[in-house]
Amino acid sequence: MRANGERVILVRRETSPDDIQGMDAAMGFLTAKGGMTSHAAVVARQMGKVCVAGCEAVEVKESQHTVKIGPVTLKEGDYLSINGFTGQVYGQDLPVVSSEVIQVIQGKMKPQQSEKYRYFATFLSWADRVRRLRIRANADIPDQADIARGFGAEGIGLCRTEHMFFAEDRIPIMQKMILSRTREEREQYLNKLLPLQKADFLGLYREMQGYPVTIRLLDPPLHEFLPRREELMVEIARIEEANNGNRTLSAQQADLLEEKRRLLARVEELHEFNPMLGLRGCRLGITMPEITRMQVRAILEAACEIAREGKKIVPEIMVPLVGMVTEMKAQKDLVRKTADEVIKQYGVRLKYLVGTMIELPRAAVTAGEIAKEAEFFSFGTNDMTQTTYGFSRDDAAKFIQFYMTTADLCPNCHGSDVDKKTNTCRSCGFVITEQPGNIIEFDPFATLDRDGVGFLMRRATWDGRNTRKDIKLGICGEHGGDPASIEFCHQIGLDYVSCSPYRVPIARLAAAQAVLNNRKKKSEKDI
Amino acid sequence: MRANGERVILVRRETSPDDIQGMDAAMGFLTAKGGMTSHAAVVARQMGKVCVAGCEAVEVKESQHTVKIGPVTLKEGDYLSINGFTGQVYGQDLPVVSSEVIQVIQGKMKPQQSEKYRYFATFLSWADRVRRLRIRANADIPDQADIARGFGAEGIGLCRTEHMFFAEDRIPIMQKMILSRTREEREQYLNKLLPLQKADFLGLYREMQGYPVTIRLLDPPLHEFLPRREELMVEIARIEEANNGNRTLSAQQADLLEEKRRLLARVEELHEFNPMLGLRGCRLGITMPEITRMQVRAILEAACEIAREGKKIVPEIMVPLVGMVTEMKAQKDLVRKTADEVIKQYGVRLKYLVGTMIELPRAAVTAGEIAKEAEFFSFGTNDMTQTTYGFSRDDAAKFIQFYMTTADLCPNCHGSDVDKKTNTCRSCGFVITEQPGNIIEFDPFATLDRDGVGFLMRRATWDGRNTRKDIKLGICGEHGGDPASIEFCHQIGLDYVSCSPYRVPIARLAAAQAVLNNRKKKSEKDI
Repeated sequence: MRANGERVILVRRETSPDDIQGMDAAMGFLTAKGGMTSHAAVVARQMGKVCVAGCEAVEVKESQHTVKIGPVTLKEGDYLSINGFTGQVYGQDLPVVSSEVIQVIQGKMKPQQSEKYRYFATFLSWADRVRRLRIRANADIPDQADIARGFGAEGIGLCRTEHMFFAEDRIPIMQKMILSRTREEREQYLNKLLPLQKADFLGLYREMQGYPVTIRLLDPPLHEFLPRREELMVEIARIEEANNGNRTLSAQQADLLEEKRRLLARVEELHEFNPMLGLRGCRLGITMPEITRMQVRAILEAACEIAREGKKIVPEIMVPLVGMVTEMKAQKDLVRKTADEVIKQYGVRLKYLVGTMIELPRAAVTAGEIAKEAEFFSFGTNDMTQTTYGFSRDDAAKFIQFYMTTADLCPNCHGSDVDKKTNTCRSCGFVITEQPGNIIEFDPFATLDRDGVGFLMRRATWDGRNTRKDIKLGICGEHGGDPASIEFCHQIGLDYVSCSPYRVPIARLAAAQAVLNNRKKKSEKDI
Repeated sequence: MRANGERVILVRRETSPDDIQGMDAAMGFLTAKGGMTSHAAVVARQMGKVCVAGCEAVEVKESQHTVKIGPVTLKEGDYLSINGFTGQVYGQDLPVVSSEVIQVIQGKMKPQQSEKYRYFATFLSWADRVRRLRIRANADIPDQADIARGFGAEGIGLCRTEHMFFAEDRIPIMQKMILSRTREEREQYLNKLLPLQKADFLGLYREMQGYPVTIRLLDPPLHEFLPRREELMVEIARIEEANNGNRTLSAQQADLLEEKRRLLARVEELHEFNPMLGLRGCRLGITMPEITRMQVRAILEAACEIAREGKKIVPEIMVPLVGMVTEMKAQKDLVRKTADEVIKQYGVRLKYLVGTMIELPRAAVTAGEIAKEAEFFSFGTNDMTQTTYGFSRDDAAKFIQFYMTTADLCPNCHGSDVDKKTNTCRSCGFVITEQPGNIIEFDPFATLDRDGVGFLMRRATWDGRNTRKDIKLGICGEHGGDPASIEFCHQIGLDYVSCSPYRVPIARLAAAQAVLNNRKKKSEKDI
């Protein structure tokens, strides 16, 4: 539909990385599940698209190509409008327009044409004079980096390399790599991915013109790249059942069945009960070092080409999900060995850094040890919030909402359609007779929890600097774009925050406010 | 088969709580997935059964009633022997015999008849004179409590109430409770469970004769009590497909299909991507307070009946998975209100304690606050290891093994059948050309990680005592039965360790050794 020039909104139960092409085509996303840091919300912020996530009233019926929202049923092609600020969903085509600031950033308007943009730019230049924190952006592709630069980002704090593997021309190679039975076979497919990854990084480096670029090695569990286990099970059951019904399978169908069974067997091998706590992050790079090698080669070959052109580039290679200094050391040694080979091949002079995400409580607690092997830390506060609270970000939205605003939600079905006069839930008919007190005042995935996650960050900052005086410290979780969290990052002395491109202006302002607020507090104390 | 007097070994891909009846009937368990603290291993230790968990060579073909183990295929009824100490599996019926000590404990032999038992008892009495730590056992039913007492346990440190709901006569009521649409309906089924739970607790109290009994409120996510999502999806697909094939459904089949679809809809509602980090623990008790109320009523009614008999009883009610003091307060208030009502009804004098598990990093970091509302802490080190490391205990065995003994495992398929001469994996044919260094020296689920999890425990112990001087501190994770971990618990000053009944003698000895080792260290320092 998008290719035909139509405007599209993607409506899903929840999105996952394999939706990335649909998300790219859509102008906005509406999901039934998830919250502030669910996949849909994070990608939307990064792409600068509108998103309403975790709208429990939405019921997606994929097989019928319809969506039921409360009492209304919409079918494919019907009009729908969504408001990402309020979470409202409208069953009609409402007129919308981009702000002038965005139009200038996107090059659709010139700064001279927009007084609003000039006010915006002047105002933020005042903030820049005051702030101490550097502001970076989370960007995976040159387009995002371009927007980020337009908004004033001073580097990329997080480039998620996995998003590159979901592109239409790459996912089949990625799948073959995962399904390989030998390292040789795996390396053969990785070699096909190498030039594509290298081109991605070249694009990013050029866009960032010498500003630092932090690239994270592959992070998600491998089954995210394969078809879903339960869908395969159902497909196989259907083919088998058709066979039982004496409708004999053609040779082609029999082959298909055999192929699906083989695929399922491999998917079963990779299946995990809690993938968030499974074989992912540096655990992948350690058990399959050839993946790390390919990525490091792509990062360094691209950097060497930039260096050859006489331009400045200092790539920062980031190892995800480290919990033990031994993991960091194993990956660092592998990175150094590969990187130094590439630099020698190119015969250029090039500096690069190797560091890690601090996103597990154990990493925070042993940060003093980890800093012996890591040249920078970037706090991955999404994952750290998950593990510190024991809250899955994909599942917890339901009870976090309940914890926050108990009076507005049904304790039985967790729906928000409660008749306040009769205290009856309109969705499930439940009569609300009792409400627990307010358990939590804010969503810890949106605003940093200073007492828990913040305690761990403070300790890691302190211990990290104690071990390595010039260690670079930043944050690249979603909190990097939240003003209250940015203030905390300023207070504990981080060097930079990194946020989605569209949040860069907010971050610049919040970083300045943090300085002023703390001056004020200090002078109040002095009195 | 067990009912016919035959000896049975349960072989499963992995076990889950709904296998509890099969586990009860079996003499031992063999699973393909899992590790030291997987469901099968934990239940085996508690029941005193033999278990080999995470034997990757095992391939269970449920539909064919066969098991492939390496090159051998066994069918239902074939003989199999397993060695829980070595992990070896034998395709034959090997003769086995219980130790004399176990025979005496189980009442099958008298102490006078066994010199070995008398040596055992004398030796451990020496340990008892030296140790400072109290030793409790994790026990859910009177039989386990009986064994624990026989081995010298001085209380129950963890009674998991959910195991009681999986019994054959209870699971249908539990399921109806979960599927209820209104609180009234839910309470109706909870009322049916109340007398059953009460009888469980009466049995435990009588067995423990005045020793403390810590009872944990419902902990697992509710979908564990329902049929599995993917199995329902496959069943529905099969019925639908049969229908498409023009084999018309009978009225009965159509009803069945409708029922399964309704069930699936509810299972989908409860489905979570990472159930370990989802709607469980006190999050259940807060969103569905009627569950907490029923359990507290059962705990207190049973205690009041014991008190009426003039016997001593101090139940300790434990709230699971607390991460915030507000959660603890909400549950404590509810527990106190319900408990005081029951005590008033019975007109007895009865003391009880309300405390919490410390099993999340956030709980450890904010323990000083939580201690304002909690009269005791019990460290749940299984869950705390999961969240501190970001290791799912059901999924991590594979890479933890790889991290520990890299030279013995295939980096491609993680199988252990590696030909060391040619460095070739016999399972997948992979040629091992490179091995990462040793990442980890021990399995953190078996032996407590002092640097990470231990840091958090030390802090919580310190802050907890700071807030509430007489707070009771214990541990009820699997580490409570591991000698090295027991030494650490002694060092940081816990009051007790709680372990599976069969580990109580080891724990008594290790607690004494901890005292002696630390005296030795102290005197070495003095010199």
